[in-house]
Amino acid sequence: MVKRNIVVEEGNYTPVFNCEIELAERKGLGHPDTLIDGVMENISRELSREYLATFGKILHHNVDKGQICGGGTNVEFGGGEFTKPIFVLLSGRATEKADGKTIPVQRIAREASLDYMKKTVRHLDVLADVELESHISPGSSDLVDLFLRGPAIQFSNDTSFGTGFAPYSELERLVLETEQHLNSSRYKSSHPEVGEDIKVMGLREKNKIKLTVACAFVSRHIEDINVYVKYKQRVKKDIEKKAAKLTEMDVEVLLNTADDEKKESVYLTLSGTSAEMGDDGSVGRGNRVSGLITPFRNMSLEAAAGKNPVNHVGKIYSVLAQDMAHGIADEVKGVKDVTVTLLSQIGAPVDQPRVASATVILDGVKYAKAKDKIQYVIDQRLEDITDVTHRIVEGKVKIF
Amino acid sequence: MVKRNIVVEEGNYTPVFNCEIELAERKGLGHPDTLIDGVMENISRELSREYLATFGKILHHNVDKGQICGGGTNVEFGGGEFTKPIFVLLSGRATEKADGKTIPVQRIAREASLDYMKKTVRHLDVLADVELESHISPGSSDLVDLFLRGPAIQFSNDTSFGTGFAPYSELERLVLETEQHLNSSRYKSSHPEVGEDIKVMGLREKNKIKLTVACAFVSRHIEDINVYVKYKQRVKKDIEKKAAKLTEMDVEVLLNTADDEKKESVYLTLSGTSAEMGDDGSVGRGNRVSGLITPFRNMSLEAAAGKNPVNHVGKIYSVLAQDMAHGIADEVKGVKDVTVTLLSQIGAPVDQPRVASATVILDGVKYAKAKDKIQYVIDQRLEDITDVTHRIVEGKVKIF
Amino acid sequence: MVKRNIVVEEGNYTPVFNCEIELAERKGLGHPDTLIDGVMENISRELSREYLATFGKILHHNVDKGQICGGGTNVEFGGGEFTKPIFVLLSGRATEKADGKTIPVQRIAREASLDYMKKTVRHLDVLADVELESHISPGSSDLVDLFLRGPAIQFSNDTSFGTGFAPYSELERLVLETEQHLNSSRYKSSHPEVGEDIKVMGLREKNKIKLTVACAFVSRHIEDINVYVKYKQRVKKDIEKKAAKLTEMDVEVLLNTADDEKKESVYLTLSGTSAEMGDDGSVGRGNRVSGLITPFRNMSLEAAAGKNPVNHVGKIYSVLAQDMAHGIADEVKGVKDVTVTLLSQIGAPVDQPRVASATVILDGVKYAKAKDKIQYVIDQRLEDITDVTHRIVEGKVKIF
Amino acid sequence: MVKRNIVVEEGNYTPVFNCEIELAERKGLGHPDTLIDGVMENISRELSREYLATFGKILHHNVDKGQICGGGTNVEFGGGEFTKPIFVLLSGRATEKADGKTIPVQRIAREASLDYMKKTVRHLDVLADVELESHISPGSSDLVDLFLRGPAIQFSNDTSFGTGFAPYSELERLVLETEQHLNSSRYKSSHPEVGEDIKVMGLREKNKIKLTVACAFVSRHIEDINVYVKYKQRVKKDIEKKAAKLTEMDVEVLLNTADDEKKESVYLTLSGTSAEMGDDGSVGRGNRVSGLITPFRNMSLEAAAGKNPVNHVGKIYSVLAQDMAHGIADEVKGVKDVTVTLLSQIGAPVDQPRVASATVILDGVKYAKAKDKIQYVIDQRLEDITDVTHRIVEGKVKIF
Repeated sequence: MVKRNIVVEEGNYTPVFNCEIELAERKGLGHPDTLIDGVMENISRELSREYLATFGKILHHNVDKGQICGGGTNVEFGGGEFTKPIFVLLSGRATEKADGKTIPVQRIAREASLDYMKKTVRHLDVLADVELESHISPGSSDLVDLFLRGPAIQFSNDTSFGTGFAPYSELERLVLETEQHLNSSRYKSSHPEVGEDIKVMGLREKNKIKLTVACAFVSRHIEDINVYVKYKQRVKKDIEKKAAKLTEMDVEVLLNTADDEKKESVYLTLSGTSAEMGDDGSVGRGNRVSGLITPFRNMSLEAAAGKNPVNHVGKIYSVLAQDMAHGIADEVKGVKDVTVTLLSQIGAPVDQPRVASATVILDGVKYAKAKDKIQYVIDQRLEDITDVTHRIVEGKVKIF
Repeated sequence: MVKRNIVVEEGNYTPVFNCEIELAERKGLGHPDTLIDGVMENISRELSREYLATFGKILHHNVDKGQICGGGTNVEFGGGEFTKPIFVLLSGRATEKADGKTIPVQRIAREASLDYMKKTVRHLDVLADVELESHISPGSSDLVDLFLRGPAIQFSNDTSFGTGFAPYSELERLVLETEQHLNSSRYKSSHPEVGEDIKVMGLREKNKIKLTVACAFVSRHIEDINVYVKYKQRVKKDIEKKAAKLTEMDVEVLLNTADDEKKESVYLTLSGTSAEMGDDGSVGRGNRVSGLITPFRNMSLEAAAGKNPVNHVGKIYSVLAQDMAHGIADEVKGVKDVTVTLLSQIGAPVDQPRVASATVILDGVKYAKAKDKIQYVIDQRLEDITDVTHRIVEGKVKIF
Repeated sequence: MVKRNIVVEEGNYTPVFNCEIELAERKGLGHPDTLIDGVMENISRELSREYLATFGKILHHNVDKGQICGGGTNVEFGGGEFTKPIFVLLSGRATEKADGKTIPVQRIAREASLDYMKKTVRHLDVLADVELESHISPGSSDLVDLFLRGPAIQFSNDTSFGTGFAPYSELERLVLETEQHLNSSRYKSSHPEVGEDIKVMGLREKNKIKLTVACAFVSRHIEDINVYVKYKQRVKKDIEKKAAKLTEMDVEVLLNTADDEKKESVYLTLSGTSAEMGDDGSVGRGNRVSGLITPFRNMSLEAAAGKNPVNHVGKIYSVLAQDMAHGIADEVKGVKDVTVTLLSQIGAPVDQPRVASATVILDGVKYAKAKDKIQYVIDQRLEDITDVTHRIVEGKVKIF
Repeated sequence: MVKRNIVVEEGNYTPVFNCEIELAERKGLGHPDTLIDGVMENISRELSREYLATFGKILHHNVDKGQICGGGTNVEFGGGEFTKPIFVLLSGRATEKADGKTIPVQRIAREASLDYMKKTVRHLDVLADVELESHISPGSSDLVDLFLRGPAIQFSNDTSFGTGFAPYSELERLVLETEQHLNSSRYKSSHPEVGEDIKVMGLREKNKIKLTVACAFVSRHIEDINVYVKYKQRVKKDIEKKAAKLTEMDVEVLLNTADDEKKESVYLTLSGTSAEMGDDGSVGRGNRVSGLITPFRNMSLEAAAGKNPVNHVGKIYSVLAQDMAHGIADEVKGVKDVTVTLLSQIGAPVDQPRVASATVILDGVKYAKAKDKIQYVIDQRLEDITDVTHRIVEGKVKIF
């Protein structure tokens, strides 16, 4: 049995939810940064499926860099037009040939991109309004063998670092769930005028929360400024209602504060994403695998989206650390706050990090008692590391 | 009434159908050169419609340059895959703003391109397998006024030249109709295995014709080499049958001569066009407005496709000259061969060419008698010149 | 010894210089169509040299499609600025690997393009103001062997057609030499204000010639409208002086007729080419190998530029036919006009066309006497066909 | 006088240099991520200069997204060749027109990009081997007025967050200075074989440091594997020598560990950057403004490079916080470790953050005594905030 280097410590820091100021942000699914994360991750998923179907193994790929360059639109109440398509650059490397077989990487990438964008931004006509350019190139042939005939548990490809935390603070839950609520298919079905580009910024000062929401509205469902104002008030109320269920703190909701309703200059879009009118997006510049940007917590700079889920520890350890933190918070009694950190050992099997550490703040339990359980959770998750790979491929894990 | 400079002469040349050697070629609808002609012409048509709907006039545009860079495929009997999309570059200029209104030029161009390709190459999945890049830019604003508030009959934009001939020789009809037959929806419905990229080259030496046909077959409808050979023989017979109806000359049909059936290296495609595997196409490098390339007849280098049908004499005069030639051949008795040539006068109304000339070979009629009728046909067509514009916009005129 | 099918006939047509109307045009070296011809031809030349240096043979390539999409500039007297670079698309196919060696096709193509543009358009800063995108892809590997280990004289790759004529009519010489004079390095050294985009259109009606010249001027050398007018008059006089040496006919010179000097709206450019401000160019849309566009003479649609000079009869026969015509006109006494036509036999050695024909108008000599000499000239040129290949590679042959 | 919200606290955390494990990384100037940071920052700088020269103010721009897609090379000892150019995508927005004047944004961007790459990667031939595509588009015209006629101290454009720390730990200095030493012009002049793509990863476990360095070597200066091995050993020694001056801890240097010297498969490049052979780079994915990636310290996800230095708090506060931290560490006695955090107040003047906080670990001084000095340093820097803007434009501030 593998002996892993797992370190559990009691922290002596002030948990973020007890600090005077707390900040958390979520860029919604239709935000350009999140959108391109989703596009590249979907390419990785579809490539992985194709590799599995063809070779029984996921072959080397790394498509963790991509960019959206905003298009141009003329928007008016009731409709409007694209004047310049959204430009999407796909980048990275993916194995195209192995064992005498060819994988149609370019086609998979194009389809995965357009499908994802179509599905994610309901009102975007990807055929007409998206220009796609792929610079994905075949990876080094050296790696083919490693992936095809290497061990079941691959070796870390890098010295890298993943981190996760749990449980979410009230502010964090509020920020996360506000966006998820407004972007749920249930909400959308009764509010088709709400676009997918929803950015939520939460700021807590002591026990007062300010929730700043930027939400794109969809022009074809809004006939004039009065309707816009009405809809906007409705959305604001819906956010407030949702907030009231999640926290007892005082929550002030600020929605589309840049609007100038008198000049009818409001956040109206054709497609529901600001990418239509000049906003750019880049992989790895948005949410972490927690689904949030949390400046007062430790964060890794690693972009998880688009990396292969087999040996790229920058991805696997980010997902795993977040997963472990949730596990510890759920399964170990008395954990008020936990931060998990995984540091890889380049060239060692991915299930054997150089160090896996958990720092906890406990409440009403003894450290000695919690320690073993925490260690067990971590060890278990490392033992089942290939499971993470599968769940990533199946799209069952939050990546952004 | 306008007095036009119309010159009719009797020619003393040997008509092409009486020469010892005659050559005629047609690049079918799915050939890359013809495909990009069609794409750019469709953009011009759709822009014209939009301009008419918005302003009541067709505004300035000129999208007569575009290019297809071939993609890449792995083709096998029964199917295959794209490994690299077909790349399409759109170029030219089109008015984007006038009278405070904006025309979504880029979107119209994208849609017109993809729609046309989808419709023309049945098996091409334009969403997944075509990468489109538009470099169409707004035209000079000087021209907006000219088109918006200029006279009903515009002024020639250039010193240019159009030429046409009629009637088609037996060889020419044979070449033209062979492709049209194989690309008819009727033929396609019973022969889905026949692609749209069909190139027909006819060579007549005295009264023997050699018809060399390159015809792309569609892999998904052909399970193996035997089926391919069977289908190919069937197509060959169909061509021979068609030929027998059109001429009494001896016609030898050569179909896909580069095939090496033993090595199973045959003209098999995924999509029905050779653009899928590296063949490029450029506007103006394929058929003339006659639908043919006829090296032994006078031809203009002008690309008609994509030019505006209002003041671009390079297009209008090509269409008109061909139309006049047909008119003369049809309406004037005894015309064995006629070549019409229109030379524009830059800055003069387009219905007043510097010279419109017809050179005829007559058979069994007196020149004096034919002359007036010919002159009348030409004059009439010039009188009705705006009619040509409309027929072009409606897609009722052959451009390639 | 090879027996070739050479046909010489006396024509009964009216030579173009005796017709009432004659038209000839030359798009100068800096015209977008000519510029892209030159770019692609230079790529072919540089590739050929590299292939020869590496393999001792020219390998397969065909880069006869390319496009320039015009940029954008703000021009003012004394200077100005680029607001959008000129976009250049390179297309086609070229062998990248053979015998275990790799040829850096992309790099050669980029360098050959930029070098050519820099050299040809003196005031263009190619580093800052040209955006280059290459879609040149590796050719089919089948062809590698054919070129590497095939016979010294290759087989025709197509059924194609080349044509040439000689001698040039007075109008043709005038058009050709006017541009050559204004674009000569000698002229440029004393007239740096004259750009390279010089288009000359000549129209002869009986013995009166109208020479319409569009000549880009270079803003940095012209401080104001008065200087422009002065320079323009000087150029006009230079053209008239040159014309007087070439013809005794009456020549009216029209220079930059679209200028509106009062509004200071004149043909002023930053770089000397109209490609800087929206004019596009496409391979094969400009001059024929004669250096001219001659609508009243037979012309081939074949683009010679960029095709390989080894087996691409569309190029070789165009060059050869023009060369033969010059040879006949120079070496055979009494030839007033000759048109040479070469028709290839696909799959046969390129020195054995299906037919090589010359049609001549003689003056003061007997046909019987001239015939043998003409036949000899043609046969000789075919015998020495590999010589054409070398002269093309060395850049000693006019291609556009 | 402005009253600012400045909070100073004594921390109760363990400083990173006292933790058991510490990690720090620097991606050198030639690393693709750093290279594109530098390209976009240089564009911002050049635009700022042009705006200042033309309008006396820096106008709105934000070019903080850009991407490098790796090219392709064949490298061999003594030389090699590019087979595919490096592709660079420029993105973002920049004011093109204001007060009737036009700024040639595209040209400035192209030149700034190519100049920077040329200067930074000595052996890269940017003309031949870099393909540049700009998607920079004109920004919203609303912002023109704000920048042109707004107050001297602009308003924060966003709720954002900047953080900095000081002093650098021994590990951090070691990592930073190792790269700076190897990339200094002095070192390069005597070691031209050392490329600019130098990545340094430092891991400290207790008082043992492992310094993993990946350093691209330049093929043209290395004739064979023996010379490579010799040079590599020399570089390793130079790193060790440098390390000995910076720390007394035990430092193990690992250089180019992926090399397989027997197979002659080593880290050899043509140009000195891995971008030449498939490695991609994205803005904001590399070093923070500290010049380092420090996973165990607080980091902001904000990309500073390319943002405008006038109202983009994501950039200004990152620079300022780092600057304040250095100031505090240098100017206030007894500061062992300080972390400065600036949180912006959207819409408020940038010199008035919502909160500016400093957390310090002191050694041998009383908190009460240090507090005021610290507060003063922070207040001063905010007072002189426009100074930061100027220093950024002049390139005197580390951004990556």
